Amino acid sequence: MKCSVCKKPAFVKVRYMKKSYCKEHFAQFIESKVKNTIEKFKLIDEDDKILVAVSGGKDSSALLYILSKLFNNVVAIHLDLGIGEFSRKSKEAVKELSKLCNVELKIYKLKDMVGFSIPEIKLERRCGACGLIKRYLLNKIAYEEGFNKIAVGHNLDDELSFIVNCLISGDIKQLSRIGPKTQTKGKLIGRIKPLYKCYESEMKLYCDAVGINYVKEICPFSKGAKQAVYKKALDLIEEKSPGSKLSFINSFIKKIKPLLPKEEVKLNECKECGFMTTSDVCSFCKLVKRIK
Amino acid sequence: MKCSVCKKPAFVKVRYMKKSYCKEHFAQFIESKVKNTIEKFKLIDEDDKILVAVSGGKDSSALLYILSKLFNNVVAIHLDLGIGEFSRKSKEAVKELSKLCNVELKIYKLKDMVGFSIPEIKLERRCGACGLIKRYLLNKIAYEEGFNKIAVGHNLDDELSFIVNCLISGDIKQLSRIGPKTQTKGKLIGRIKPLYKCYESEMKLYCDAVGINYVKEICPFSKGAKQAVYKKALDLIEEKSPGSKLSFINSFIKKIKPLLPKEEVKLNECKECGFMTTSDVCSFCKLVKRIK
Repeated sequence: MKCSVCKKPAFVKVRYMKKSYCKEHFAQFIESKVKNTIEKFKLIDEDDKILVAVSGGKDSSALLYILSKLFNNVVAIHLDLGIGEFSRKSKEAVKELSKLCNVELKIYKLKDMVGFSIPEIKLERRCGACGLIKRYLLNKIAYEEGFNKIAVGHNLDDELSFIVNCLISGDIKQLSRIGPKTQTKGKLIGRIKPLYKCYESEMKLYCDAVGINYVKEICPFSKGAKQAVYKKALDLIEEKSPGSKLSFINSFIKKIKPLLPKEEVKLNECKECGFMTTSDVCSFCKLVKRIK
Repeated sequence: MKCSVCKKPAFVKVRYMKKSYCKEHFAQFIESKVKNTIEKFKLIDEDDKILVAVSGGKDSSALLYILSKLFNNVVAIHLDLGIGEFSRKSKEAVKELSKLCNVELKIYKLKDMVGFSIPEIKLERRCGACGLIKRYLLNKIAYEEGFNKIAVGHNLDDELSFIVNCLISGDIKQLSRIGPKTQTKGKLIGRIKPLYKCYESEMKLYCDAVGINYVKEICPFSKGAKQAVYKKALDLIEEKSPGSKLSFINSFIKKIKPLLPKEEVKLNECKECGFMTTSDVCSFCKLVKRIK
């Protein structure tokens, strides 16, 4: 198997493209895919100040690496969740990566910011709570530090499994909000997903191709979620018909999403923290109260 | 494991219902589910004359059995496709079944009706051609014999795999036509799907429970279709979260379908055969020309 570009021995076969690539040209292929996504969906403007949320995992690591190649206006933010060895490894990986990318890195400790770390949460839905906390704090940091966009490492598989979940549960509201970007509204900073058209498997391969040392362990608290099964189901379909996942997201964005009712969400400031919420007190403040 | 109704030893556990049933009460459960589907979607009126298309497989066999218990106005139609031993076994199974159900059975030979049988079709898409031929001939028989509805054995898994196919390929037109019934339009007889809320696995169990001797072999020409992979993918999801398939179809019918554009399809009579088509000559007439 030879690289379709340079004819050197191939590193990977991209079945849905009917092409093979060496490491160098696979990296180029992914980078140009991300660039196209950014241009097509107008994710980044020249004068943006972009916070890249980096956990140390494959997706956000690849994201930081690619964005730092394409743009100057990015800063990496890492939240230290205080999950023992897992968080220690994550922090080291992110430090190494930001040096490799020559990007400013800011590390925030959850414990310093809210007074507890993830292992201290005694709720059943710890993973849900962790997601909420991370979203809230990244937004708070972005707002307070003057960033106008938050880039996150959501890949194609993340997005599709979320779509499947909404389709099965009939959650049209959530379905209508799905997309590669959200707009900034008051203190709620817009989020962008430059890896929107990248397969999860491609992100792993990309890290290997360019030599990113990402954290392979999964969080010790992560539970076998429904989302993981949706991803497996989508993998089955992709295996049989390469390109199905891309076709699915394209169909959704072009054909289904425009049909969904666009409900204007009314946001006001939380009575406790002042950040945006749809009710009186935001979910984060409610959660922190429950935890403490 | 005991039957949730009568406490006798259970024959099957229905996970999404969190119930177990003996053969008798499982059959009752399925029959009442079909009855509810018929009532909810107003599939059958008292004065209907219903043609039940019976192949001899588990779905259409279960359908005939259940409809013959619930209604008097049903006649079984079997198309002999001329596929050697497979068709011979199918015909025998249908004959036995119609005796069991005490229902009139009419058998039509494809060879007599169109001059060829399925093995003589030399097209790549033989399965697609077979589907088209069956739909056309069943409609022709229904129209000419004065039936006003055609009942088909499509189950929940059939419908969902079709929905998934449309979602992935972005076929909004097909998606908007999906549902448990179509209306009669001129010479195009309305079709109903009383097994709309029944899992494929339930149909097999139902046949075993009531003692229907259905054909277990699959057609020797059937190809590993995409649809089969969609079904496997849906099985994975159902296995993890029982009830997902039912939730998916309910969400689709209640929440997604009403959002889809309702395009009025303009039908006229085929210049060759006089049956309904969207173009000058219907797909069946075109196909027969190609085959001959």
